[in-house]
Amino acid sequence: FNIVVLPGDGIGPEVAAAGVSALKAIGEVYGHTFNFEEKLIGGIAIDERNDPYPADTDAACLAADAVLLGAVGGPKWDLQPKRPEQGLLAVRKSMGLFANLRPMDVPASQAFRSPLKEEIVSGADMLIVRELTGGLYFGKQTRTDDRAVDECVYTVEEIERVARVAFEAARKRRNKVTSVDKANVIETSRLWRETVIKLHKAEYSDVELEHALVDSMAMHLVTRPKSFDVIVTENMFGDILSDLASVLPGSIGLLGSASLGSGKGLYEPIHGSAPDIAGKDLANPIGTLKSVAMMLRFSLNLSAEADALDAAIEAVIKAGQLTRDLGGTLAGSEVTKAIVAQIHA
Amino acid sequence: FNIVVLPGDGIGPEVAAAGVSALKAIGEVYGHTFNFEEKLIGGIAIDERNDPYPADTDAACLAADAVLLGAVGGPKWDLQPKRPEQGLLAVRKSMGLFANLRPMDVPASQAFRSPLKEEIVSGADMLIVRELTGGLYFGKQTRTDDRAVDECVYTVEEIERVARVAFEAARKRRNKVTSVDKANVIETSRLWRETVIKLHKAEYSDVELEHALVDSMAMHLVTRPKSFDVIVTENMFGDILSDLASVLPGSIGLLGSASLGSGKGLYEPIHGSAPDIAGKDLANPIGTLKSVAMMLRFSLNLSAEADALDAAIEAVIKAGQLTRDLGGTLAGSEVTKAIVAQIHA
Ligand SMILES: CC(C)[C@H](C(=O)O)[C@@H](O)C(=O)O
Ligand SMILES: CC(C)[C@H](C(=O)O)[C@@H](O)C(=O)O
Repeated sequence: FNIVVLPGDGIGPEVAAAGVSALKAIGEVYGHTFNFEEKLIGGIAIDERNDPYPADTDAACLAADAVLLGAVGGPKWDLQPKRPEQGLLAVRKSMGLFANLRPMDVPASQAFRSPLKEEIVSGADMLIVRELTGGLYFGKQTRTDDRAVDECVYTVEEIERVARVAFEAARKRRNKVTSVDKANVIETSRLWRETVIKLHKAEYSDVELEHALVDSMAMHLVTRPKSFDVIVTENMFGDILSDLASVLPGSIGLLGSASLGSGKGLYEPIHGSAPDIAGKDLANPIGTLKSVAMMLRFSLNLSAEADALDAAIEAVIKAGQLTRDLGGTLAGSEVTKAIVAQIHA
Repeated sequence: FNIVVLPGDGIGPEVAAAGVSALKAIGEVYGHTFNFEEKLIGGIAIDERNDPYPADTDAACLAADAVLLGAVGGPKWDLQPKRPEQGLLAVRKSMGLFANLRPMDVPASQAFRSPLKEEIVSGADMLIVRELTGGLYFGKQTRTDDRAVDECVYTVEEIERVARVAFEAARKRRNKVTSVDKANVIETSRLWRETVIKLHKAEYSDVELEHALVDSMAMHLVTRPKSFDVIVTENMFGDILSDLASVLPGSIGLLGSASLGSGKGLYEPIHGSAPDIAGKDLANPIGTLKSVAMMLRFSLNLSAEADALDAAIEAVIKAGQLTRDLGGTLAGSEVTKAIVAQIHA
């Protein structure tokens, strides 16, 4: 398997290295060979190539079996015309990664970490499916001295393909989809809702479907997170709601994500580049390792291996071998070592 | 004082009546005369006039000293081409109500009601200032069979005037403004940030200013709500974040809002029309009464009267004279009566 690794900025390189270690361990135990190719993206790519997404990075990503990303961005590049985030948007667009999958769960044993009261959040288990290559993120942008315009565009095809991902995922989970929009105000949301309703009727009427307005949904995620199974929404709403949901487990260091298209996928932890702790071996590797488990499952078709990695992560959390964000004392690399040891066990 | 009352739909008429009772009581005690004129808006206006915002409603609102709104909307009108919400958007636009003020606080004594852990939320006290007449809400909308487009537009002038409201409010509070945007992705947000920075430098450098991305802000509101004083943001982000913040006190029945322009203001509780409990005298009137207190303060320049109403509300909450959403047993009208009695006391 050819894996492209995009370490990126801040703690990106540390957590990406953790991902590589885990894949190597999986390879040793299960007899697979992973070839790793490291490429530049984000701030470091701006520094070294004056381009947040160089052509050779793009070529490598398009040719790879899967891509592992660390994180991009940092205050260093905030005031520049070229921004690290452009690299992230570019790889999503180029690889056609239209569906961002963000699982979030709060096992009863971990609910004490949540900012929410335990009885509200304990047992919550959802999958947010965010549309990733449309909407305000990729619409035409215009700017004069005193006026700016962003276009938010959606087509039926774009909505259908991501809704399909949500319905399919729901069938493998608790069979319920909550589609989120702002259909009482904007036109793209009305098209969104109509399209989801039609697709549901035509192909997925066995799945329970409900609709929620984005403002109400922000409330529901805090007041009754257990009511949701699969949530599907457009790009900007998905950005906001998935980040909101990500704090419910009490550390954003625990969550991974998969960005999928019709071809290969890109996998990254949901946290950012955390420049304040970069280089100190403090970063929690678990979000990245969760992403690697998704890579094994979705891109490499290795579900037993994915289960093994997930189980190794679980075991290490249960054993209390934790980084500081979880109240532990271990370095990030020590947590990775513990998980690698579990894989070998 | 001429007050236009727009009861609207669902529980709107009940809570609007509570607002009228409180104003009458204030009038009696402090020697003011309030003239009330009731007008149609929303679903009921569609039913009776086939127009969610009839011309005579508009004329009355424009002539009034202040407008009190109940709530609009309901499932009855969901599938119609004319929607109740259009009435709300129309009155905002026509009256030029560009700044929506939503105070939210969680007194230590009430923190037990919050979905958040008490230590995280106790003492939180913020004011969200939402831009209300720009952005995706009022941009050009286009639609073909398989494609929809919404335009998000902002001008420097639109950003400046609402940012000014936020800075002025901060000076009367804890002197801090958090401006929320998505400047790493969209053009209107970059204009937003630049404009806020320039205005701050030119006129408000005594106020502490910080910037947050909307996705991070959704996280912060749940993980560290006490860090914020005044939050200012564009229309759609403000819709989402203010609703998110509104669940922190444990009941959305407690919060009011003011929508201000260069002229008069419109005041409404932040909750919706709650058709499920409409007509049962269960609705909590406090959100509306808080809105009336803001009306007294901002539109009628009666701060002593506003303080008296706020104090009466406080006293009744402390005395445990509560509706069901707060764990009490009283009818909405009984709570109103208790507050009116306090005003007279
Ligand atoms: C860095 C930024 C462009 C990105 C986004 O908004 O999509 C990030 O917030 C994310 O969610 O992956
Ligand atoms: C009803 C709807 C149009 C409205 C909005 O989105 O502005 C409401 O959610 C609000 O926040 O006042």
